[in-house]
Amino acid sequence: DMCGIMMLGKDVHDLLETSSGGNVEKGFLRWRNGGGMYHRSALIDSSALVEFGAVVHQEAILGAEVHIGSNTVIGSSVKIGPSTKIGNCSIGDLCVIHNGVCIGQDGFGFYVDDNGNMVKKPQTLNVKIGNRVEIGANTCIDRGSWRDTVIGDDTKIDNLVQIGHNVIIGKCCLFCGQVGIAGSAEIGDFVALGGRVAVRDHVSIVSKVRLAANSCVTKNITEPGDYGGFPAYKKTEPDSAFASDKHCFILQKILIQVPIHQWRRQIVEAQISSKRKP
Amino acid sequence: DMCGIMMLGKDVHDLLETSSGGNVEKGFLRWRNGGGMYHRSALIDSSALVEFGAVVHQEAILGAEVHIGSNTVIGSSVKIGPSTKIGNCSIGDLCVIHNGVCIGQDGFGFYVDDNGNMVKKPQTLNVKIGNRVEIGANTCIDRGSWRDTVIGDDTKIDNLVQIGHNVIIGKCCLFCGQVGIAGSAEIGDFVALGGRVAVRDHVSIVSKVRLAANSCVTKNITEPGDYGGFPAYKKTEPDSAFASDKHCFILQKILIQVPIHQWRRQIVEAQISSKRKP
Amino acid sequence: DMCGIMMLGKDVHDLLETSSGGNVEKGFLRWRNGGGMYHRSALIDSSALVEFGAVVHQEAILGAEVHIGSNTVIGSSVKIGPSTKIGNCSIGDLCVIHNGVCIGQDGFGFYVDDNGNMVKKPQTLNVKIGNRVEIGANTCIDRGSWRDTVIGDDTKIDNLVQIGHNVIIGKCCLFCGQVGIAGSAEIGDFVALGGRVAVRDHVSIVSKVRLAANSCVTKNITEPGDYGGFPAYKKTEPDSAFASDKHCFILQKILIQVPIHQWRRQIVEAQISSKRKP
Repeated sequence: DMCGIMMLGKDVHDLLETSSGGNVEKGFLRWRNGGGMYHRSALIDSSALVEFGAVVHQEAILGAEVHIGSNTVIGSSVKIGPSTKIGNCSIGDLCVIHNGVCIGQDGFGFYVDDNGNMVKKPQTLNVKIGNRVEIGANTCIDRGSWRDTVIGDDTKIDNLVQIGHNVIIGKCCLFCGQVGIAGSAEIGDFVALGGRVAVRDHVSIVSKVRLAANSCVTKNITEPGDYGGFPAYKKTEPDSAFASDKHCFILQKILIQVPIHQWRRQIVEAQISSKRKP
Repeated sequence: DMCGIMMLGKDVHDLLETSSGGNVEKGFLRWRNGGGMYHRSALIDSSALVEFGAVVHQEAILGAEVHIGSNTVIGSSVKIGPSTKIGNCSIGDLCVIHNGVCIGQDGFGFYVDDNGNMVKKPQTLNVKIGNRVEIGANTCIDRGSWRDTVIGDDTKIDNLVQIGHNVIIGKCCLFCGQVGIAGSAEIGDFVALGGRVAVRDHVSIVSKVRLAANSCVTKNITEPGDYGGFPAYKKTEPDSAFASDKHCFILQKILIQVPIHQWRRQIVEAQISSKRKP
Repeated sequence: DMCGIMMLGKDVHDLLETSSGGNVEKGFLRWRNGGGMYHRSALIDSSALVEFGAVVHQEAILGAEVHIGSNTVIGSSVKIGPSTKIGNCSIGDLCVIHNGVCIGQDGFGFYVDDNGNMVKKPQTLNVKIGNRVEIGANTCIDRGSWRDTVIGDDTKIDNLVQIGHNVIIGKCCLFCGQVGIAGSAEIGDFVALGGRVAVRDHVSIVSKVRLAANSCVTKNITEPGDYGGFPAYKKTEPDSAFASDKHCFILQKILIQVPIHQWRRQIVEAQISSKRKP
């Protein structure tokens, strides 16, 4: 179950078979600014551009100057903030994409040709984003070159984060502001990265790992647990760097999979303490 | 004196009481793209969107594709560069907001519900920016969740800076490029942060502190002075990291509050030396 | 040979002498949204703004909501992604500028006036970008204050990079994601900066230098070679930080200037190995 992500080709093709005016029975019409298909229940700002070949599903909301490129599918009830540019990408349902986000542009790949010139390596694949994903303002996610760039369900990403081409990110991850994931890195499920954590290209991190803010991961992490530092090393005893970090505290509860009734009590406590000083 | 920031509610309400065409005597009219109010002396690009409930004051200048959200007040003589998205925010007078800036989008806050799902914590408060503030290109400032995010008068912020929700920043601060301030941090007046300084969530820094580029503040700083390193520690003797940093040199003069006539001489010297190699 | 960059003044003046309708013989017409000049072979999205005084040359492609400021020249066959803001800048031929890039806004420069107030230092010069340069999404490049900001031919810059005012960058450089170059730094040719490398203001780096990801350059680098760490130091033996970094491997081949026939074999090997795990 690849994070319940919509197959890009099938969905677009299915709608385009209809008459030029879109598939009226299925409730899809052609958007006048760009010619892409949108469901009648979607709310699209008049200045938004939905290119020919793109599809916007039920109850999606697109803000001013949003730009949806041709090879893109926007799932149902997705909210997209103004001036966001999305191309070569499928986005699942119930996602929130904030202002100025750039998804699906070329990854950073070059090689040297016979004459010693730097030549661009083709970047022709896509970005696949699951359901209930949130992506912060001005964050950038590049399209794939040798495999798609993938982000799993329920993963939340903060502002000004860089995600390089071919990166695979699992479900229920939390990436704080200014995190940087270099090309072809692989990250499991339930991984929490504090502010500005850096992950090196082609490195892999298993599920249920937490990294303290400003850590740099230079080699594979093969064991769940808490890590920090540059290069990142495993933390044996509980580290104050995590203790007060409310995001990591949240992940802590998911990681331990404490029985629900205990959680209920903990969550209430957490909400009370967060009212004072979250 | 909360940095002389306009009370959001009163100002908007005061104008909206007028006839649908806006308050002609006070010189306010309704902007045709979005329905917000603007003063006749303001210069607004035709492609800019000023939503219903927003107010743009005298002699403000809004560039192409600027997007002003409904719950927002733009002070007089504020300059806003193209493709800037501002919502849930009051901006004082004489500010300069550069291209691609995102202000007032949701902060990064989640909690775990009874079923172990990551749920978004409501982000319903505002951003309050004082007078004569400058904010660099593609910088992101999140709205508050349990208190407003606040930036004091005369504070200058460079490009690609991240300011999390609930952060409070004082007056006359200088934040260089790619600085990151995590949620709920508190920073006093006259604080200079070199390039890419990171401040941890819920940490506080007193007034008149300077931090060398790339430092990471992991605990409260309670004494004015120069700091650097990861974690940041107090620098006893003058540090070359600051010596040549012209921004810190500027702050140095404000910090010491040298009598004006001495400053006049120093400023002239600074301007002569900056002509050669600022 | 200043990277074959077009003299801004001459080129614009030459076209504007023509009749108000543009220089028909030379194939230039006036763009209806903003009044700037464009070559008839250029493809410009209807929502793009080309201000009066700007020039867009043959076969350039401008995406939706691109904003070209008055004092700007766009070379031939340049591709510019949506919502990109470019002003006070000349761009050579065959460049690729991705989504959300901000070029030519004011640099970050302030001084203290007689009354101890922070006052903005005039930022009136330009950005000059050579030929075949690529610039990643949401990257920011500031205009100069005491000299132009310059980027040489064939240099490739990734997403979310910050380049301060007055910076000079040579040819054939590679800057990975989230790199930060502070104001007035000078960087030679064939320099590779791994992800998030930081270079301090007024520092210079000679040609043929490679820096490992997350390094911080605090003083001049006067010798070609591999460097890493904070502060960056010279690496004597080959460092794994570089070994697997495919960008550095690319630069390695240019740096050594291995005879072409050897390269041909190496390039074929590189392409085979990159097919498996580039």
